Amino acid sequence: MALSEYFPIFDKLTAEQQALLLSHATKRTVPAGTLLHNGDETCMGILVIREGQLRAYLTSDEGREITLYRLFSRDICLFSASCVMNSIQFEIAITAEKETEFWIIPPYIYKNLVDNSLIFSNYTNQLMATRFTDVMWLMEQIQWKSFDKRLAHFLLEECSIEGTTVLKITHEKIAAHLGTAREVVTRMLKYFQAEGMVLLTRGAIEILDEEKLEELE
Amino acid sequence: MALSEYFPIFDKLTAEQQALLLSHATKRTVPAGTLLHNGDETCMGILVIREGQLRAYLTSDEGREITLYRLFSRDICLFSASCVMNSIQFEIAITAEKETEFWIIPPYIYKNLVDNSLIFSNYTNQLMATRFTDVMWLMEQIQWKSFDKRLAHFLLEECSIEGTTVLKITHEKIAAHLGTAREVVTRMLKYFQAEGMVLLTRGAIEILDEEKLEELE
Repeated sequence: MALSEYFPIFDKLTAEQQALLLSHATKRTVPAGTLLHNGDETCMGILVIREGQLRAYLTSDEGREITLYRLFSRDICLFSASCVMNSIQFEIAITAEKETEFWIIPPYIYKNLVDNSLIFSNYTNQLMATRFTDVMWLMEQIQWKSFDKRLAHFLLEECSIEGTTVLKITHEKIAAHLGTAREVVTRMLKYFQAEGMVLLTRGAIEILDEEKLEELE
Repeated sequence: MALSEYFPIFDKLTAEQQALLLSHATKRTVPAGTLLHNGDETCMGILVIREGQLRAYLTSDEGREITLYRLFSRDICLFSASCVMNSIQFEIAITAEKETEFWIIPPYIYKNLVDNSLIFSNYTNQLMATRFTDVMWLMEQIQWKSFDKRLAHFLLEECSIEGTTVLKITHEKIAAHLGTAREVVTRMLKYFQAEGMVLLTRGAIEILDEEKLEELE
């Protein structure tokens, strides 16, 4: 499968623009754990994900983290080109959570296309609005939802992403996703266990009562 | 002063697009307290602010609030046209905090321009990125900053907006800006008073030690 199949507006671009994209896009595969973007330090360009999973997150000065959103197959990562987007004045980090295969559209090609193609500009708009929506959802969660609901939602989402009810994830990692301390996660998981919703084993969390977690959520 | 002077990209539009804008834009003045946008219930269009102050905020199901950003003279309010922006899947409210005079560009005119003008599309992009930056700043504040710092920042910002060190604002209103309960605001303000930073009087907060508040911030 080629880039043209994964880039939604490809068919709507001019032949010249299509050629520009295809001649400058490079394909890359990175192992899980690779830091792909870190604020202004890096500027790879737009990433078109063929297969895999990326995580976009905020980090504090003290090294705390919170997940903003995740990207999967056929998603487009826009903010890895933030260096050529003057009005984006915030810094996020992007890491591969799984082995990920993607095409890179270099920043100057992105800039060229967005400056010259109405289709491309409107598509950028749409992508940004989608990520904005993700972040606003998170804002509402942080602001109005209690932590038990957020944790229940996270566990159910992980089950859905991984296609299993046995999650191999540390309390530390969950804390980094949800922007809290490990102790807070451990305490709530123990409460979930006491209520019969999960079973905690070494290095794994087994979901026992999905329905009860959903009710909580 | 005409709309053309307040709309930054006006000179870059075609004569036809300029005529379209001018013939469909209407001017309106609303008193302080007017609710201009409330999620999907309203769809005025793009607002170009001539004079005044708007507040964009989130509301919870329980009626709690948190301010996302404010708009002033020469700012453009984009999300009051969210009905024609398909990828915007969140609902915010927008209220006039002061008497505000603005031009309204109807949603179908906005849609026409964004669909046909590269300049307009890129400008929309830039506006959205700016608001996205505002929201990400807020997210970092909520997530990593303690409440004393957020309150100190808010008081200093209000002084700067109002051009005074005597703020006529209720603890209730501050709570709605910062997304917390009134009691939390009152408690922290009393602490600020005990530390000699502010003086609390009936219906007003006087800033006594700006420097100390800045240090806190």
